[in-house]
This record gives sequence, C-alpha cells and structure tokens, in this order.
Amino acid sequence: MVFDPATLTYNEAGLIPAIAQDAENGDVLMMAWMNAEAVAKTLETSRVTYWSRSRQAFWIKGETSGHVQELVEARVDCDRDCLLLLIRQTGAACHTNRRSCFYTALRDGAEVELMAPEAD
Amino acid sequence: MVFDPATLTYNEAGLIPAIAQDAENGDVLMMAWMNAEAVAKTLETSRVTYWSRSRQAFWIKGETSGHVQELVEARVDCDRDCLLLLIRQTGAACHTNRRSCFYTALRDGAEVELMAPEAD
Repeated sequence: MVFDPATLTYNEAGLIPAIAQDAENGDVLMMAWMNAEAVAKTLETSRVTYWSRSRQAFWIKGETSGHVQELVEARVDCDRDCLLLLIRQTGAACHTNRRSCFYTALRDGAEVELMAPEAD
Repeated sequence: MVFDPATLTYNEAGLIPAIAQDAENGDVLMMAWMNAEAVAKTLETSRVTYWSRSRQAFWIKGETSGHVQELVEARVDCDRDCLLLLIRQTGAACHTNRRSCFYTALRDGAEVELMAPEAD
C-alpha cells in the first residue's frame, strides 16, 4: 500500500505528534510536531524535519546545532494520528544539551533529574 | 522538588500527550492523552489512566479489556508539555489486539504491517 502523508489525521492546526526514539538503544528522546509537508520532507530526505509551532516554520532538526536526526524508520499508529520515528541521533536531542528531553522523573511525588547536560 | 500536575503545560483542551513505553524492552506501545486529574490518578494508583477524547471520560487503560498498564515510572520533558510513561503492559496495548499501536512501518513509500493481532 503506497503511503501518502495526506492520509494521516492531523489536529485542528494541521499537525501530528512525532515521537523520536533512538534506533540503537530504544530511548525515547523527544516529541515534536509535523505537518503533512514536514512528514513528506522527512521521508524524502531521511533528515527529520519538524514544524516549529513557536516559529511557525520548518525545523530541520540539528540545522543550527548539528544535532541532526537521521531517520531509520517511520511508523504510524492504528489511528493514524501519531508517528514514531526510529532515528540515529547525533549529540543531544534536547535544547538543554541533554541526550533526551525526558530527563525528569517523577518519583514519590518529587521531581528527580536523571541526566546532566552533555559536555560540548 | 515536589511534583504538582498543575505545573504541566496542557493544550487548549486541557490535555497533555502521554507516550507509553514498555519498561522491559523499550518498545513504544501507544500515545494517548491525559488531563491534570488523569495525571494525578495515574501517579496515585500506578494504573495508567488516560482521558478519552472521543468519550470525554477517564479511560482506565484495560478496565474492560484487562489489558492494564502498570506504571513503573513517569517522566516529564523539558517543556513540561509531554509525558513518558514506563509501564508494564498486560496483553495488547492496541485496540486491534496488537502489542503496539505502531505496527505499520513506512518503507520505500509503502506501508508495511509489522505485527499481527495477538491470539486471545
């Protein structure tokens, strides 16, 4: 079955959430948003390209930081309203320079920081 | 730092996306939504409880199917607008009776089904 980004379900802003998972160790690194064109660009180039809601512009991950995400495989969920991206991450996925954006655990009602920013 | 669900960032519908990841093998199983009360219930009970957008009601995962999700650890991302739930999944996470909702891969412009529904 040929894949067409237009067949995905987007929210009222025309966006779909995309979860980036490290293809090597399975760590979930971040979640961001794509519009149909960002989905198409990501599949065409294998460079993960989100839609920045704050800047209202394409966000080629790592374009300024060098922390690029190379797509290994994209998957779509049963409702076609969420994407899972298996990627190879160069450097930190998080803008805080941590490997993953999910660096804060909730344990016994408190927030616990799991990892420090990486050295440059 | 004490955690308060009210400190998370919710969308205009009062919801935050929650990614469920198998705590044992790292598979991403599904993504669904929570409101602040669902976050609190999940942390209090360790039974993952979403907010069903279609039913506009709490959705205690597995309440009817038996396919419950036991919370191992919740994590919050840098922007505090997405949750990652490390869980122990009983049976299938997906309503199609597949282990994961992300059973469709996009390969060479085509959709490829990665897994079949589980036997009952």
